[in-house]
Amino acid sequence: MGQVNASISISLDGYVAGPDPSMEEPLGKGGEGLHEWVLKLAGWRSRHGYEGGETGPDNDLLEEENRNNGAVVMGRRMFSGGAGPWEDDPNPTGWWGDEPPFGHGVFVVTHHTREPLVLGATTFTFVTEGVERAVELARDAAGERNVLVSGGGSVIEQALRAGVVDELQLHVVPVLLGGGARLFDGRGDGEVRLEVDRTVGSTDVSHLRYRVVR
Amino acid sequence: MGQVNASISISLDGYVAGPDPSMEEPLGKGGEGLHEWVLKLAGWRSRHGYEGGETGPDNDLLEEENRNNGAVVMGRRMFSGGAGPWEDDPNPTGWWGDEPPFGHGVFVVTHHTREPLVLGATTFTFVTEGVERAVELARDAAGERNVLVSGGGSVIEQALRAGVVDELQLHVVPVLLGGGARLFDGRGDGEVRLEVDRTVGSTDVSHLRYRVVR
Repeated sequence: MGQVNASISISLDGYVAGPDPSMEEPLGKGGEGLHEWVLKLAGWRSRHGYEGGETGPDNDLLEEENRNNGAVVMGRRMFSGGAGPWEDDPNPTGWWGDEPPFGHGVFVVTHHTREPLVLGATTFTFVTEGVERAVELARDAAGERNVLVSGGGSVIEQALRAGVVDELQLHVVPVLLGGGARLFDGRGDGEVRLEVDRTVGSTDVSHLRYRVVR
Repeated sequence: MGQVNASISISLDGYVAGPDPSMEEPLGKGGEGLHEWVLKLAGWRSRHGYEGGETGPDNDLLEEENRNNGAVVMGRRMFSGGAGPWEDDPNPTGWWGDEPPFGHGVFVVTHHTREPLVLGATTFTFVTEGVERAVELARDAAGERNVLVSGGGSVIEQALRAGVVDELQLHVVPVLLGGGARLFDGRGDGEVRLEVDRTVGSTDVSHLRYRVVR
């Protein structure tokens, strides 16, 4: 079996999205600043059909993170921005376009049932039985490869607390958002134990990788 | 002139002290876990009159942080745990014993006036005109050497917002405290701009150093 890795960009003041998210600003005010480091990388651009982009240590790390993935778990908001019933969703096929960059199964945690959605080489499966079940289905789909739990923060936190994550990587971006969604929002203390696995960084971002202790 | 450096240990969920601080647990529940990495280092132990201790990258970094210091700025709670008038303070000569490990001026930010306190080679000066004034006095005292703003979180945050800090170093410890005092508590967004200067770490702690952009 592969392992289950969680990975998310986080501001220096601990937010994984800025305040006041909307369909226009799904990551909240200033939240896009969390992802600028990745959007300019060659590895991100090539997966999204663009040429060029930066190489270097951040790109190597992104490639490393993606190289062995066989499935992704994400929350409903990361899929489409919506949260309610699908018929109310202004963006029912998600943010990811007609050719999503995954090329393997994506398991979307949601409260609302829906048939799987196939877009290009990516199949989105909608899981209403919670994060732990989504990770289980993703593990089955990934086989020998890894599962990436890619956000949002509450999905990663739930997966950590359920004890189904092997490795957590935080990409700490030197911005202060001053509000928004925190990764760990006052529900810490002992339930999740972590050990530092690696600390590396560039001039844009610091990558902190942890092993989850069972 | 030297530069002004701020440095503090912080939990992975963004707290610089745990919940429910008391005279018995001045760092709050679990807060001592933030400082275990430093207490076992040779550089910390020798300054506090103990032998032995660990060497290695964390110790090198501690020595680097202390090598060129000529003065320290800290908050009242970091001096004694108290916050009210001095006559009510159960610990009026501070936590630091008869031979505090500083050997130079320490400027304590407080609301309550008090004459300077000389203990061994360390003089504590009590500053009631705010953090910015404390840093100014510390700079004068340090001369060509550096000033270290060493906590607590609110003193560091005030110094950052006052624009008097050149460099911020966060020692990110892989614990989740689940509550307590945050370094940046929802007062971010644009007032303080940081650039990554260096990211290094050990198996115990990750050291993120930032330049403050003016």
